[in-house]
Amino acid sequence: MIETPYLLFLGDAPDPLAAKVAQGIRDWRPELAVGQYRMDGCKADMGLPDMTLAEAVEKGAKTLVVGVANRGGVISPAWSAVLKEALLHGLDLAAGLHARLADVPELTANAMAHHRRIHDVRVPPRSYPIADGRRRSGKRCLAVGTDCSIGKMYTALAMERAMREAGRAASFRATGQTGILITGEGVPLDAVVADFMAGSIEWLTPDNDPDHWDLIEGQGSLFHASYSGVTLALIHGGQPDALILCHEPTRSHMRGLPDYKLPSLEELRDLSLQMARIVNPDVRVTGVSINTAAMHEEAALEYLEAIEKRLGLPTVDPYRQGAARLVEALD
Amino acid sequence: MIETPYLLFLGDAPDPLAAKVAQGIRDWRPELAVGQYRMDGCKADMGLPDMTLAEAVEKGAKTLVVGVANRGGVISPAWSAVLKEALLHGLDLAAGLHARLADVPELTANAMAHHRRIHDVRVPPRSYPIADGRRRSGKRCLAVGTDCSIGKMYTALAMERAMREAGRAASFRATGQTGILITGEGVPLDAVVADFMAGSIEWLTPDNDPDHWDLIEGQGSLFHASYSGVTLALIHGGQPDALILCHEPTRSHMRGLPDYKLPSLEELRDLSLQMARIVNPDVRVTGVSINTAAMHEEAALEYLEAIEKRLGLPTVDPYRQGAARLVEALD
Repeated sequence: MIETPYLLFLGDAPDPLAAKVAQGIRDWRPELAVGQYRMDGCKADMGLPDMTLAEAVEKGAKTLVVGVANRGGVISPAWSAVLKEALLHGLDLAAGLHARLADVPELTANAMAHHRRIHDVRVPPRSYPIADGRRRSGKRCLAVGTDCSIGKMYTALAMERAMREAGRAASFRATGQTGILITGEGVPLDAVVADFMAGSIEWLTPDNDPDHWDLIEGQGSLFHASYSGVTLALIHGGQPDALILCHEPTRSHMRGLPDYKLPSLEELRDLSLQMARIVNPDVRVTGVSINTAAMHEEAALEYLEAIEKRLGLPTVDPYRQGAARLVEALD
Repeated sequence: MIETPYLLFLGDAPDPLAAKVAQGIRDWRPELAVGQYRMDGCKADMGLPDMTLAEAVEKGAKTLVVGVANRGGVISPAWSAVLKEALLHGLDLAAGLHARLADVPELTANAMAHHRRIHDVRVPPRSYPIADGRRRSGKRCLAVGTDCSIGKMYTALAMERAMREAGRAASFRATGQTGILITGEGVPLDAVVADFMAGSIEWLTPDNDPDHWDLIEGQGSLFHASYSGVTLALIHGGQPDALILCHEPTRSHMRGLPDYKLPSLEELRDLSLQMARIVNPDVRVTGVSINTAAMHEEAALEYLEAIEKRLGLPTVDPYRQGAARLVEALD
């Protein structure tokens, strides 16, 4: 678990998109960010107070989160200098980069010397049990997709927000790097060793109050040749009561697989249900979440209506319309 | 890749069953074993010449394979002494134990000093790519099961033997510890990091001659809540042309999951085909392999006949009857 609140490190972000992780924290957990730290030439801005390291510590910051993707996958000397200073100021470090902070000797040495922690969230921080398939108390909802990177995390976070606003007990459960940095905890599922995948998700979504919902971040797709095994482990470890179907209508092929077409929403519904019923015979598909970012509003609304009619399920773009209808359909 | 031939270390095996790995090598790759090494009190016997370490080296042995499961999962001092001596005699070491040889300082120090290698085959020896789903040349057959530990490795090895005896090009592809020790190479799939599971199987079964068959060792089951993700990665990475259904008729519940019933062979057939078609639309189920070890011969033969009629597929117990009919059905 990463200590909060955070100082968001935006580095020398070449454009706002590079600061996707910081934006996620800003959008979904604004109360966790006391401010932002920008270097010369930074082109991203979260609209948070700019702070020095000393000011951030004064405001109570416990961890500097690298909220920006670095160029070329390496940690530049300019970044290292700031990160080392952060350790000297008493901050922990957290990042989800391909390059590990813990592989930079200067950072590990200073973290040890000053009793600070370095969280590389692509590395599982603990070992997990083998899944036992036992039925757990509480409720679980999982977003499944026709493809990878299609809005599953966004959907789960939007549902969590809608439930909390309605005064209901709900927890977003992060299973990827960005989700973990947003919430400060979770399982980096794609980095877990094969035998323990389903067990790590059982561990992440334990017994809970009967009316509590875990909103589990989906990963990959049952139809994606590269990552389908991760998705199935998530379904069998997550033991979902409710499934939300996620889709992006303008995509011409599976992400990274030019020869593979996306399945239909009906195929996704049927296969996901069949798989989930193995661990929970009562599972239902309760809604559809469409990422219409690449469509004009009118076309988007028409598409949503058509899908709603075709599948007979509440169908929304949570970015345009919020997730309230998806939440209502859980009952 | 583990250097061959082997000296099989049977240690102080308390009974023949403890020497399962050595038995597998003896049964499936007898040409790889120059002899056996037994300690005082050893209750296992592979019927191979008993040898000292010096004699084994003289006969050309390159690697001492720990062919026995140890008691309590630890490497006893009595074993260590022999293993260290083996390194001094110029042998590499290989084992698939839960405890790692490489964690015994005395062994690693001597391996380094004498330029010998230690193969702990539960640890992936290399990194693997992300799967790209590209169609590969050559043919692939995968055994899938209603449960774990149901005869999938045995089936693939028996089919390889039948094909080689018929003069056909075939390679057993090991995906588990025992299979790797039997053949000297493979992928320890259950220890591979989630994102690279399917890619490791693509790597294991690359482009090949059009009439060459890879006989891929199956793992887990699509219906097993603990390991289903591993199985799906194997199906999508393996891109099978042919599937063999494996079953054990006397089992009352899924292995390790008392609350889960085994699926029917029809359910296994339908779900496996549906999953495999995502990467290979031409995939077929070509046969059924039944493990009838727990049945009397008459009952076994009746059962096989009934299944053959019910599913309309060649149905054999490869241990009782050989795998020739499974091989014929591939064409």
